[in-house]
Order: sequence, then C-alpha cells, then structure tokens
Amino acid sequence: MLDTIKSMDEQFVLPTYARQDIAFVSGENARLKDTEGKEYIDFTSGIGVVSVGHGNPVVTKAICEQVGRITHISNLYRIEPQAECARRIVERSGYDMKCFFGNSGAEANEGAIKIARKYGEVDGQVKRYKIITLEHSFHGRTITALKATGQEAMHNYFGPFPDGFVYAKSIDEIEGLIDDHTVAVMIELVQGEGGVQPLDREKVQALAAMLKAKDVLLMVDEVQTGIYRTGEFLASNLYGIEPDVITLAKGVGGGVPIGVVMTAKKDIFAPGDHGSTFGGNYLSTAAANAVLDVLEAYKESGKLDEAFLYFETELKKLFEEYRGLFTDAVGFGMMRGLRAKDADTLARVIAKAREEGVLVLKAGRNTLRFLPPLTISREEMDEGFTRLRRALAAL
Amino acid sequence: MLDTIKSMDEQFVLPTYARQDIAFVSGENARLKDTEGKEYIDFTSGIGVVSVGHGNPVVTKAICEQVGRITHISNLYRIEPQAECARRIVERSGYDMKCFFGNSGAEANEGAIKIARKYGEVDGQVKRYKIITLEHSFHGRTITALKATGQEAMHNYFGPFPDGFVYAKSIDEIEGLIDDHTVAVMIELVQGEGGVQPLDREKVQALAAMLKAKDVLLMVDEVQTGIYRTGEFLASNLYGIEPDVITLAKGVGGGVPIGVVMTAKKDIFAPGDHGSTFGGNYLSTAAANAVLDVLEAYKESGKLDEAFLYFETELKKLFEEYRGLFTDAVGFGMMRGLRAKDADTLARVIAKAREEGVLVLKAGRNTLRFLPPLTISREEMDEGFTRLRRALAAL
Ligand SMILES: Cc1ncc(COP(=O)(O)O)c(C=O)c1O
Ligand SMILES: Cc1ncc(COP(=O)(O)O)c(C=O)c1O
Repeated sequence: MLDTIKSMDEQFVLPTYARQDIAFVSGENARLKDTEGKEYIDFTSGIGVVSVGHGNPVVTKAICEQVGRITHISNLYRIEPQAECARRIVERSGYDMKCFFGNSGAEANEGAIKIARKYGEVDGQVKRYKIITLEHSFHGRTITALKATGQEAMHNYFGPFPDGFVYAKSIDEIEGLIDDHTVAVMIELVQGEGGVQPLDREKVQALAAMLKAKDVLLMVDEVQTGIYRTGEFLASNLYGIEPDVITLAKGVGGGVPIGVVMTAKKDIFAPGDHGSTFGGNYLSTAAANAVLDVLEAYKESGKLDEAFLYFETELKKLFEEYRGLFTDAVGFGMMRGLRAKDADTLARVIAKAREEGVLVLKAGRNTLRFLPPLTISREEMDEGFTRLRRALAAL
Repeated sequence: MLDTIKSMDEQFVLPTYARQDIAFVSGENARLKDTEGKEYIDFTSGIGVVSVGHGNPVVTKAICEQVGRITHISNLYRIEPQAECARRIVERSGYDMKCFFGNSGAEANEGAIKIARKYGEVDGQVKRYKIITLEHSFHGRTITALKATGQEAMHNYFGPFPDGFVYAKSIDEIEGLIDDHTVAVMIELVQGEGGVQPLDREKVQALAAMLKAKDVLLMVDEVQTGIYRTGEFLASNLYGIEPDVITLAKGVGGGVPIGVVMTAKKDIFAPGDHGSTFGGNYLSTAAANAVLDVLEAYKESGKLDEAFLYFETELKKLFEEYRGLFTDAVGFGMMRGLRAKDADTLARVIAKAREEGVLVLKAGRNTLRFLPPLTISREEMDEGFTRLRRALAAL
C-alpha cells in the first residue's frame, strides 16, 4: 500500500518536499493511523493547521451540511458564512478592522503587502513602498512573499524579485532602517519556521509605539500564531499591541484552505483592487465558523488553558531530563520548541520519535518543534511524551 | 435576512467587490435558492468553479467521508489522494508531466512563473527571465500574477512589481518580442476575464512550434479552461498542442480551493524550491478525485458532448433572435459569450436576467458570459433560456 502511494507520488508529483515515508489514512483528535495500521500521537497537527484535531465531529458536521447545500458561489454575491466569519474574527480580536479572504498564508501576506503599498501611495504615485522584515522570518512561497522572507537562501532562482524589501537582523535594528520610503514593518511575533523564536514583549510594544509615531504600518504575520495557538485568540492580543494589518491562515479552517488579511485601514481597497475566486467561499468560511465554535467554547470553559499548562509542564519536565540533548525550551501555548544541541541530533530525534509512534517537527536549524492540536487530551499528551521519552532514551 | 447579511458584510469585509444584493442558501445542480426563497438558474457556476453542479452528491459524499477521517496533514508525509489526483490529471491530459498543488489560480501561476525563472537559470545565474503574456489576459491577484496580467489598469498602486513581463498586443506579435532574455510565453487559449476570446487554433500551433525551436517555454493558463470546460479535458488538448507548463484551478475541486501547476520539466524543482501548507491536502485532492469521477463518466457516456451541443444550439438561437442587442457569439463548450452592443446594454441584461431568475456574468468590457455547470440538464438549460428571453424581451 505505502509502496504504491510512494511510487505514484514519485512519478506524478513534483519533488518539492523530501517526504517521509508514511501515509496516514485516518485520525481522531491527536491520534493518527497510517497505511500499515501503525498508530501515532500527532504533535504537529499538519504544521499547526488542524488545531481542532483530526476528524473533529463539529467541524466535520458543519462541512458536510454546507457542501450538501452549497460549496461555492462567487464573491459577486453576498456570502453569509463569509460575513459571519469576518464578524467573529474581528470581534474576537478586539480590533476595529475589516477582513479579506484568500486561500493560504502566502495569499494573506500578498494582501498585506498590497495594503501597505497602496497605503504608501499619494495622489496616484507610490511614494513609500519599502517593507522591513526580520531575518529568519518566513512569509510564504509566492514570488513576493519569498522576497519578504528574510532568508538569503529563499532569494535564489526566481528573480527578478520585486524591490522594496529590507531585512533587519533583529527587532532592535528596525528603527535605524526606516527611511522616507518605508511604509510598513512585517513581523511574526513568534517566528515559526525560523525556529520558534518569540520576540520580546516590551520591545514589540516599543516598536509598535515608534511605528505609530512615524506613521509606518505594523503588519503582524499570524499565519502560524493566530487562532489560539499561543493561548490568546491572536498573539497580538498576548503581546498587547494594536497592529495595522494582521494575516491568518493555518489554524483558521481546520484543514480547509483559507487565508485572511485583516486591517484597521478599512477604506484602503476599492472594488477591483484585490480579489480571489475561491477566497471566503461557503465551504472555507463555514468550516472556519465551526472551528471558532469549537475553540471559543474550549477557551471559555478553561480547558484550553488547562491543556496549555499541562503541555508546558510536561515538556519542561522532559527538557530537564534531557539537558544533554537540548539547550533551551522556547515558545508559548502550543507552539513550542526544544533547541537540540545540533542539527544531527535533531534529525535522529525526529526519526526515532516516528519509530516510537509520535510525530514531531523540525524548525530552523536545530529546533524540535511541537504544534499539537489545541484540543489534545491529557491522555494523548501523556502517551505522546511517554513515546518521546522512549525515543530519547534509545538515542 | 438579506439585510442582516449585507450590513454584516459591509461592516466586516473589505470592499474589494461591488457585490450584487443576493445571498444564496442552497443549490441543486444548476438551480440556486436565495435567502428570500427565490429560485435561479445558474449560468455562472461560481465563475466556472462548480462544474459538477451545486450539492453534487458524489462530491459531497467524498468530502464528508474524507473530512470524517482526515482533512489535512502536511506535505512532509505522503498523501494518497494527492498522488492519485496527480496521476489522474497527468494521465487524462496525455502529457508526460508532474504536478504541484497550491490553493488557487494565482498560486498555480506563481508556480508556473517560478518554473520558468528557474528554467532560465544557468549555473546559478538567472540568464533568461522574461515572460511574454497577452494584452487583456488575466492571471491572478498576487503581485507577480498581477504584473503578468496584460492589463494596464492592474499595474497600479502595488509596485514595485517584479520586472521581466512583456506584453504582446496579439499572438502575432509574440515572435517579434522574443529576445535573448525571453524564457517563456504564458497564454490563456480562451481568454476568460478578457471577454471570452479564443485564440486561433492554427496560430497557436504555429506559436508552439516556433517556441519549441527557440527553447522558449509555452505555459498555458487553463485556470478557467481546464477540466472539460471547453469540451476536451484541457483546452490544450482541443488545440492539439503540447505545452511545457499548464496551470489549473477553478473547476478542479468542485468548489474546494485548489490550484495545480503541471510541467513537462519534471526535474525543475528540488526539495525546498517551492511549497504550500494546504496545497494538495486530503480534502482538496479527495474532492478533485470525485470531480474527476463525475466528469470522466459524464464525458465517456456522451452526455457531456450532448449537453454542450444543446447549449450551443440554444444560445445561437437566442443570439439570432436578438441581433439587435448582440454583435457576436463566441467561445467553446460551456465557456461562451455574446458580445453586447455596448457596456450599458450588458449591465441592463445582467440585472434584468437576475430579476427573471437566471444568473449570467460579465467579461471584458461588453461580453455577456456563460459558464454553466457542465452537468446542467436539458430542462435546466431550457428554463434558463426561457427566463433569459423574458429578460431580453423586457429590455
Ligand atoms: C508565519 C508564516 N507565514 C506564512 C506562511 C505561508 O503559508 P502558506 O504555506 O499557507 O502559504 C507560513 C507557512 O508556514 C508561516 O508559518
Ligand atoms: C485564466 C485565469 N487565471 C488565473 C485566475 C486567478 O485565479 P484565482 O482567483 O483562483 O487566484 C483566473 C481567475 O479568474 C483566471 O480566469
């Protein structure tokens, strides 16, 4: 079975991923089963996407009901679940914003960059266009999102890239890089792909104040941190800031492709300035509304905070036990990392963990990354950590 | 009900569309019902997306079964329905290609442009990077896809855009624009948004031969024409050409966001060169496989060709009756247009048609566009044309 999938995959799919040789067939919350009948605890949730767990019954029901009635109609007409989803995201965020819906993190960030560029335009002329981003950031795979990504290795092959992106080595460097052409700063509050790197809260607040004073937009890429991943609805809430633009994607739709750009510049776009065929359709926004139902209830009941605390405690225990392998424990909520002492150790940990039946991720050069479903149960966490310990002990 | 949706929409969604004041609640094949209980014949299928009709039972069942088991896992693992979907698309196309999955037409075209740019690279240096596209084309809303779009009006506000796009006024001009830096030509075989403008078959074949001789890639944007819309599986099949790169999106997933870039340059990407969080996940590719089940069976049974012939015949009849309003009948398969004598007439036709209970689209400046579900029944077509006649008679 796996062999057939593998050979079909290799024959017909472009090799853009160095895939691991597992194929899953079913899942239930944080448990997955593969084609060989082996069962795993999932500490990855599809890289932060399936926050509500695999096969979540509430989301499944909402999707089934929606697609039985209507999956998609164009944005030329009004779409109830889209308007409802926008309302819920905006109200829950606490920011006075409006939303645009696309289909991925990259598309959400393209929307953010378009907002910044249009904001920088005066009387039909682009006056301010530069966007400062951080080293080790990740903003997506479209040509412009790649250029916004502050990693040299991402700027090969696909040029000419658009001009106007400036990279800061750290948050401290940003102010010094602002000039008359700077229109926005785009940051992840916790760099995900870059290695689970949270920014300092006070520094972020000072940055926000400085940018406001200079009329430079603060754009926060919450593609990975958004929708309760760090404990609050948005990491921007956790950091106590009021960004001008926020982007969301991964966790929004429970696995249905969706991206959101929301902005306090509510009049920035006129009809025709932006668009998306699929963006905000019945399916993706009905799924998102169900995800919000699940997670809001989970948060309000206190269960989310309980689970977060338990996960953190257990992870720190494990970290203390294996100080020989890991140098640091980082992150917030259910976006956490252990810095392995080197990249080779990390690769061995991930492979061994998989053998033992627990899925974990790599981030940056040497970070063991954890992005479990937010609805992971105590029993699933216990089982996952037991298996991980078994893996570490066997290294 | 509509008022609530409208005010919520206006309060929380960025105004990128001049929406019509209808909101649909359910559909069955080519019939839609709105919040006021009014029923419509849908000659738009969500701008060519819902080719299998609203609430298609085969696709609905496939989606429900899939999301009950597993919606999404990352591309770090092998994904059976993705590999299967790639195999089916490649085999059905008849081209020796491999696929990459994204989430929209714009993302598919970003993939195509990345393929071209990497193809133009020699020993780590980008040598050839220019891509020629056609005036009145439409390739999407990301910054690079906007720049690829050959419409001046699309190149405002969002610069600096990436360099390297060259626009040909017509297919005849392309050869003269090729220089040492040209790496690809990207065309729609039937321009959709541009006004249902089919290119001439002989000219396209001559273009393909000329490009092959010059080692310039032929990239065909089949986001709107693909998956049986023009009668054959791909419009490239209908035109009898062998492109180097083809992009697909709208009709692939029956309404689930999905985009595909497929290429004969099967070794162009190495792991890490491209990626997508959601792209090719269980949900979107399981839906696409069900869409292929439905449409392949429909084509093979002869029903698709029958429906196409009937739609064409009826549309031409109507065109002959209303030569006072329309100057030309254009298009193929179920991608058809009537050129209205002016833009004002077109606007009145669309509004009146809606009143009479039939949905039609605008394309270009003055084209009345028809993109019905491919599975539209004879009875639905009859009803739609009856209503359209009533609208035209009342103008
Ligand atoms: C912070 C951040 N931004 C953007 C993206 C790109 O999202 P997508 O893969 O959905 O385009 C990612 C994906 O990992 C991300 O982590
Ligand atoms: C030919 C063509 N290419 C690309 C696109 C962009 O597709 P999407 O809106 O899914 O990004 C469209 C959308 O209308 C299209 O018609």
